[in-house]
Amino acid sequence: MQQTFRLVIDCPDQIGLVASVSQFLADHNATIVEASHHTDLQTGRFFMRHEISTDSLKLDHQSFVKEFTPLANEYQMNWKLSDSSKKQRVALLASLESHCLVDLLHRWHTGELHCDIPVIIGNHPQMKQFADWYKVPFHWVDFKALGKEAAFAQITTLLQEYKIDLTVLARFMQILPDTLCQELEGKAINIHHSFLPSFAGAKPYQQAYDRGVKLIGATCHYVTKDLDEGPIIEQSVKRISHSDSAADMVRKGKDCEVTALAHGVRYHLEDRVIIHRNKTVVFA
Amino acid sequence: MQQTFRLVIDCPDQIGLVASVSQFLADHNATIVEASHHTDLQTGRFFMRHEISTDSLKLDHQSFVKEFTPLANEYQMNWKLSDSSKKQRVALLASLESHCLVDLLHRWHTGELHCDIPVIIGNHPQMKQFADWYKVPFHWVDFKALGKEAAFAQITTLLQEYKIDLTVLARFMQILPDTLCQELEGKAINIHHSFLPSFAGAKPYQQAYDRGVKLIGATCHYVTKDLDEGPIIEQSVKRISHSDSAADMVRKGKDCEVTALAHGVRYHLEDRVIIHRNKTVVFA
Amino acid sequence: MQQTFRLVIDCPDQIGLVASVSQFLADHNATIVEASHHTDLQTGRFFMRHEISTDSLKLDHQSFVKEFTPLANEYQMNWKLSDSSKKQRVALLASLESHCLVDLLHRWHTGELHCDIPVIIGNHPQMKQFADWYKVPFHWVDFKALGKEAAFAQITTLLQEYKIDLTVLARFMQILPDTLCQELEGKAINIHHSFLPSFAGAKPYQQAYDRGVKLIGATCHYVTKDLDEGPIIEQSVKRISHSDSAADMVRKGKDCEVTALAHGVRYHLEDRVIIHRNKTVVFA
Amino acid sequence: MQQTFRLVIDCPDQIGLVASVSQFLADHNATIVEASHHTDLQTGRFFMRHEISTDSLKLDHQSFVKEFTPLANEYQMNWKLSDSSKKQRVALLASLESHCLVDLLHRWHTGELHCDIPVIIGNHPQMKQFADWYKVPFHWVDFKALGKEAAFAQITTLLQEYKIDLTVLARFMQILPDTLCQELEGKAINIHHSFLPSFAGAKPYQQAYDRGVKLIGATCHYVTKDLDEGPIIEQSVKRISHSDSAADMVRKGKDCEVTALAHGVRYHLEDRVIIHRNKTVVFA
Repeated sequence: MQQTFRLVIDCPDQIGLVASVSQFLADHNATIVEASHHTDLQTGRFFMRHEISTDSLKLDHQSFVKEFTPLANEYQMNWKLSDSSKKQRVALLASLESHCLVDLLHRWHTGELHCDIPVIIGNHPQMKQFADWYKVPFHWVDFKALGKEAAFAQITTLLQEYKIDLTVLARFMQILPDTLCQELEGKAINIHHSFLPSFAGAKPYQQAYDRGVKLIGATCHYVTKDLDEGPIIEQSVKRISHSDSAADMVRKGKDCEVTALAHGVRYHLEDRVIIHRNKTVVFA
Repeated sequence: MQQTFRLVIDCPDQIGLVASVSQFLADHNATIVEASHHTDLQTGRFFMRHEISTDSLKLDHQSFVKEFTPLANEYQMNWKLSDSSKKQRVALLASLESHCLVDLLHRWHTGELHCDIPVIIGNHPQMKQFADWYKVPFHWVDFKALGKEAAFAQITTLLQEYKIDLTVLARFMQILPDTLCQELEGKAINIHHSFLPSFAGAKPYQQAYDRGVKLIGATCHYVTKDLDEGPIIEQSVKRISHSDSAADMVRKGKDCEVTALAHGVRYHLEDRVIIHRNKTVVFA
Repeated sequence: MQQTFRLVIDCPDQIGLVASVSQFLADHNATIVEASHHTDLQTGRFFMRHEISTDSLKLDHQSFVKEFTPLANEYQMNWKLSDSSKKQRVALLASLESHCLVDLLHRWHTGELHCDIPVIIGNHPQMKQFADWYKVPFHWVDFKALGKEAAFAQITTLLQEYKIDLTVLARFMQILPDTLCQELEGKAINIHHSFLPSFAGAKPYQQAYDRGVKLIGATCHYVTKDLDEGPIIEQSVKRISHSDSAADMVRKGKDCEVTALAHGVRYHLEDRVIIHRNKTVVFA
Repeated sequence: MQQTFRLVIDCPDQIGLVASVSQFLADHNATIVEASHHTDLQTGRFFMRHEISTDSLKLDHQSFVKEFTPLANEYQMNWKLSDSSKKQRVALLASLESHCLVDLLHRWHTGELHCDIPVIIGNHPQMKQFADWYKVPFHWVDFKALGKEAAFAQITTLLQEYKIDLTVLARFMQILPDTLCQELEGKAINIHHSFLPSFAGAKPYQQAYDRGVKLIGATCHYVTKDLDEGPIIEQSVKRISHSDSAADMVRKGKDCEVTALAHGVRYHLEDRVIIHRNKTVVFA
């Protein structure tokens, strides 16, 4: 896999902005592999992502950052320069349902998800079998024995110890405390098993069955302290009919969950998502 | 188009039920063009639709009804026998947005929707141009001048005078009074421009834009006095992204509305929908 | 999981047929969990599937078959009565690509696919790691060392020794010899990585890339000696654009393959598929 | 509708290219409403589309072209600058099937398709009724009376007389002669009623029915002299099952055709499509 730098910017829209960034890149001999722009015409905010081959580039990461900083300041940019060869460290949090966990592990194992997975945390011991096979350390946090507060304290410690960049709730089924939500802002992804905002909260498939909808879905979103209200990264739906029982809907819904979460995590890992207020720009 | 009778039944599930109905049909030499069954395992309710060619059948409509009634009573059936050659009379109610109206009229004109359309009612005069072209009488009910109560009284009268079987709200944008909702129960279809239950009420596309969803949709449902809560017949969705403005969403959403409404109306006209509590069985 | 019998029938369409079958079921106190009918109006062929709860039924499997045979003969039926508690024995054949194999194994492991998997056969040794974890015997058939003829002879022997009911080619990437195709007729399922009939043969994603299509897909079909020409059970597609490289298409296509194959295999295992000439009736 | 210029470029990829174009735009005070880039990594070709608000721009169309030409030459660009206020002149060619024609006319009438439609040409007289309503001149070219050669000569003359920029074959069902295909290269759009390359040629729905596919579709593509082989702009699919007759497939397929053609035409009119060899870049 070719090494790239990803320059991701959001700032107030201004004439000359793209020219300045492009000139900077050209001056340092950057080959642009992929470029995406978006202007939010309502808020006047500008979003930009460049994926730059490091082959021809005449700057290393440190000097790029140093050289680019004055320009970034001039245009009041939120920005980052990530290096595709520095893998993000991802923690997977799981409960009893294995489909999302197994899917993410397999995509990681085959190289589709470019990251490290140094730890899996479960609130039940059952997922250890999968973790073992993939040779990933597994920590069982016993919510029943510890109580919710101590359990989350333990999880927080684990995330710090393992130097986690991204926390993925792969059907974790536990509501994170507000303080942890705030700490992990923009760095924790959840999969909710409905097409939000429909059927937020508990038992979405039962809610969908009771309402008699003709479509079910799943939503991948960033975790915020307002449950199921975080910025949406990806949604997926499937058609159902009267002949689908609540159990059939669970089965079909799993395929939605797996796909939406896998997409959402990959977009995040490839720095394709920019959060803007309570929405996302996704340069898919 | 071949003439058929449609025998539509729902009743408590019982052993021997299908045998009795099938034997009745065989005894009268019925060729079954299409047969659909469904058992709701939760409520123990049974649903059945037969489409029967009249060619070989040894009963006319009246004698079929007479002969079948004892069986229907024995099994406590809700049932009807409709005749495909007797077209339902459909009223279209429209406002300023023409896409659903024009689509339904064209499908009717080309024979896809097998019904009569004896009247179009608008709360603005603009749709008259379309009605004229299709040679359908158009009535402008002036809500501003009349006030809501008198306006709906006028609509109610029109529906009676034209002996309307099905009222279609093709983006009518006026909330029907409770009494009219009750009168039209199971005989009035609405299109709501969101994938319900998300974004019920006013301005669903703006709501969708504000929430930052990645899918928009439309819902075709029966009208009930609880706004946007009626039994859902059909839903349709489309993928959107950050680059879609609220105006783009309106444009994309229209395609969802048109399709969902056209499907829903056709299913109803072909007696493919059975309402059960607040849900539908759709033998599509 | 509730035990059921599945009565699957196809025969010439005749008046009285459904009545006779339904009466037979009622006479033996059968509760019908699910019933599906289809008449092919072009060929006059009738298809029928009943899923019957064994709880109330006054016949065991053997006596059902005995009692039903005269009726079956009278109506010239192709038919079978399968018992949901007798799991089919499925062999998985795989090559180097693991996504379909891992997905099927996981669905089997979690009970979504109701079958036994007594053996996995690979033409490369790499899949052994997955087989081991799921505790399924793995046989590496070394095509390079053995040559194609001897290799397939070995596979044929394995399928017989393991008493295989269904052979699934989970991206096996080897063309079966004609004799084996004939032996496995209606009992071998393949996944092809295009929406057939487009891009049959080798390298379908490259073909799709070269043609510049805006959709890619996958096709699950029965194996026949005419390559990629067998009866189609299920197809799945995804939208792509100019920005997708051939590698992106492979990645997106994998999700199509996984879903289409999982559906196709489940439909087969639940006796939902009837082959009719070169097409399928799928009571999904 | 806000006036914009659309600068559309394709050229060999070179470092400094984006910087030069962006600097040019900034120097003339251009506000960029929408910007899209794509590099074809296989061929090293670069594609770029800018939509520029004319409000702040310090150049009119003529002076923009003059000023930009040296830059365009330096980078060996294929390029154009179109003015959103100069509507393209579109001819609609139709036969007996009205769904695509009526849909395009309605989208044009409501402002979704931003163009002029100065003429409709039919090879049957029936479409005149629709043309009349929309007050568009209708020409019936009588293929039977004239013979194919004279008929197409007449069409060619009409396209010239009406100064047509884009010719849309809205289910025209006549194969254009090679010379006309060449004349209209990149300026004629067709809708084919299958997901190409499947079922090219005549009667695609019958072909699809015979093959037993589980998906049908439609393909919007540029006309070339190789029938159904032109660059694809858009494709659309729908799920079908064994219960769909060939007639059902026609009905469902129409919805695919309507959507794919409407999208394709809009993309072209908004200068979102760049043809590259036999494929398209579509900045949707």
